[in-house]
Amino acid sequence: MNVEVVTIGDELLLGFTIDTNAVYLARELALLGISIARRTTCGDAPEDIADAVSAALGRTGAVITTGGLGPTADDRSKASIAALFGRELVLDQAILDRLRRLWRERGRPGELPVSNHSQAMIPRGARILDNHHGSAPGIWLEDEQGRWVALLPGVPREMRGMYQDTLHPILTERVGVHPSVVRSRTIRTTGVAESVLADRLGELGSGFDGLQMAFLPNPDGVDLRLTSRGLPADEADRVLRTGADRLLAKIGEAAYGEDTISLAAVVLELCRAEQLRIAVAESCTGGLLGARISDVPGASDVFHGGLIAYDNRVKRQLLGVLDADLGAHGAVSEPVALQMAKGIRVRLGTEIGVSITGIAGPSGGTPEKPVGTIWIAVDIAEGRPPVPRPEGRPPVTPFQRVRLFHMVGDRTEIRHRAVQAALSMIRKAIGEIDQPGDGDNGKASRGNSAS
Amino acid sequence: MNVEVVTIGDELLLGFTIDTNAVYLARELALLGISIARRTTCGDAPEDIADAVSAALGRTGAVITTGGLGPTADDRSKASIAALFGRELVLDQAILDRLRRLWRERGRPGELPVSNHSQAMIPRGARILDNHHGSAPGIWLEDEQGRWVALLPGVPREMRGMYQDTLHPILTERVGVHPSVVRSRTIRTTGVAESVLADRLGELGSGFDGLQMAFLPNPDGVDLRLTSRGLPADEADRVLRTGADRLLAKIGEAAYGEDTISLAAVVLELCRAEQLRIAVAESCTGGLLGARISDVPGASDVFHGGLIAYDNRVKRQLLGVLDADLGAHGAVSEPVALQMAKGIRVRLGTEIGVSITGIAGPSGGTPEKPVGTIWIAVDIAEGRPPVPRPEGRPPVTPFQRVRLFHMVGDRTEIRHRAVQAALSMIRKAIGEIDQPGDGDNGKASRGNSAS
Repeated sequence: MNVEVVTIGDELLLGFTIDTNAVYLARELALLGISIARRTTCGDAPEDIADAVSAALGRTGAVITTGGLGPTADDRSKASIAALFGRELVLDQAILDRLRRLWRERGRPGELPVSNHSQAMIPRGARILDNHHGSAPGIWLEDEQGRWVALLPGVPREMRGMYQDTLHPILTERVGVHPSVVRSRTIRTTGVAESVLADRLGELGSGFDGLQMAFLPNPDGVDLRLTSRGLPADEADRVLRTGADRLLAKIGEAAYGEDTISLAAVVLELCRAEQLRIAVAESCTGGLLGARISDVPGASDVFHGGLIAYDNRVKRQLLGVLDADLGAHGAVSEPVALQMAKGIRVRLGTEIGVSITGIAGPSGGTPEKPVGTIWIAVDIAEGRPPVPRPEGRPPVTPFQRVRLFHMVGDRTEIRHRAVQAALSMIRKAIGEIDQPGDGDNGKASRGNSAS
Repeated sequence: MNVEVVTIGDELLLGFTIDTNAVYLARELALLGISIARRTTCGDAPEDIADAVSAALGRTGAVITTGGLGPTADDRSKASIAALFGRELVLDQAILDRLRRLWRERGRPGELPVSNHSQAMIPRGARILDNHHGSAPGIWLEDEQGRWVALLPGVPREMRGMYQDTLHPILTERVGVHPSVVRSRTIRTTGVAESVLADRLGELGSGFDGLQMAFLPNPDGVDLRLTSRGLPADEADRVLRTGADRLLAKIGEAAYGEDTISLAAVVLELCRAEQLRIAVAESCTGGLLGARISDVPGASDVFHGGLIAYDNRVKRQLLGVLDADLGAHGAVSEPVALQMAKGIRVRLGTEIGVSITGIAGPSGGTPEKPVGTIWIAVDIAEGRPPVPRPEGRPPVTPFQRVRLFHMVGDRTEIRHRAVQAALSMIRKAIGEIDQPGDGDNGKASRGNSAS
């Protein structure tokens, strides 16, 4: 089945809102084997909505809209689309009663505002899509030819809840007998440029075994997506599994996971398996590494916390960074990064300490240390007390890793890339714990990378 | 001038990439008085690209595309759109030479990969849009009737750089003599529901003085956007200024700033004016508050850092939270929030300490403390040594504020809202410094809010 999605709102066209609903719907529909053939974003003007929905209906006969169901006067999609189906709006008393009850239950002051009454106006003959996550109900409109439009709200949390509660079951029933699906598998890589990956993959990069191939550069690295279309589900899964294995063999250690997994989640899993705990010391990222790690549900068994050492006094007083090194090398330097990583590990009593210190810009750069200069260090426990190891594994030999990066981009991108690079260094360091070192253990190993 | 934007890429339709380019272009074009009439997202198939661009050209004669200029085989927009203008692709030797030079200068291994050569193929007669931020050049195609398509890359950093360097000057020249503009002004509010705001604004909520009005709910709160269309620039600015003042008078203290300013930037400005410095102690937000504050360029004169006290041992050992209170009330409690805020302020020697402790979910909730239970505390210096005050202002009387919130949403939303609420509490606390208290100073003031 092909559908089109129409997202409605001046705020989307004017760039005041990022359209995350489109992303959510795309992923959910793909699971049902439904492809989005096209997505259109139009403004709030009734004629624009009618024109966009009408064109989409003409192409696919199946349209999902988001936005325009709220209580305020800029929301007009319901009337506009009802008119397209030749239906008038009528008051639904049950919905109005529910809106009034919700208002009271939430402890809001006074009576339900009159501006909310429009949410109870429903096109005649429409099917109501209940909203358990907000006030405005959704609507399913269908004509005699079976062409349909589903109207969902624009607030992401409400839209997602309504999709799961009401639209997903309807669509599942509709596609139930469909023999083929769109399925995809994504390999996530970090630290390698798109064109280097393309060369490494050679002919595989154009797709193979009937699988489509896409290179998806993003702030975390480059994702490689394999897509199977038109195969039955189990065969698609088999072909994708084989295809992913062929890619992984060519990519090497730059591949850290599949689909939507974050590098932080991968690192947490590795730590869990090795019974290692993490502490962070952040300067230019100001808490972003901790935020990224703790964004993963259940992070608390591995992640103990850390210090945001934005000011140099904090680096000295709480992390034990030497005044002499701050003076001689500056806060953005190899010795300071190493002392920060060790300092936080010892202070919080974890097995892994990681530090980031750098210049995120836009100001603060110098000819020697331009904006984007980032030092990252990882410090693995010295073994007093020794790292408690899973049974049968040898004790950890302590070691440190430190690297200099030259990140490109604006302040936000540089900070994001620094966090990704730090996670990548933790992942690699954990991988080295069980392997005999190269004689370099206990000393800093250095690397220089343009990222 | 009206343009349409076509964003190209299977990855956008499949939901693997969020379309941030659309947001950027919308904001930039609005500054030139150019409206985006519609935005279409289509897949990589050449016929889909041709169909979408052709329809957009038919409606407005002016189209900007993003995506499909990269080196890998899933990128096909250039050939497809060239065909629409009846142009063939020819090799541009100067571009190929530049690509080879860039490859060497970046220290990449070996020769330029063959997969990058397609980036030097240009439609005959096209104008090249230089790319100073990446490898693939952009393209401006125009026919005898003056209908044009500008092809920009899909990688956001490259797209933004190319827009500023090349497309912005071209479009500025084109609209130079145009007498009217689209201008808007946005008032940002936090902590008040959309429908409550709508009722507070009454008839103003539907627009007034020829201004359009939009309510834009987002994770930070609700933004109110006023838009003027068709007026000369200076008159539009005047009407918007008057209109914004009328709204502000009705909204009250929930309004914290205008346009794209973040609450963090507002708080930093207030601290700067009052010569106050901030330290944070974060539990469930794991560094997100620090990350949010330090995302503002130049935060370091106000923001000194903080502690990510994810584990309770860190709360005890480094923040001085009492074991007895952790045992009797739990980590998510009023006394622990207060002790964390004071602990970090004293530890880092700042004038303001702020803490967040709560249950972000999805697990960890109990009937007494369900997911979304968040305690936030702000601790203002006790005055030993007294807060250094701007000349002529009385010394600060120390005080604390603490509030319980019940946040809704998933883990990410709850954490985001907790950070926003903490910033909001700092803002209000600073506002109270210069005003005589209500006799409650030195003790905790309590509030209970459903957010």
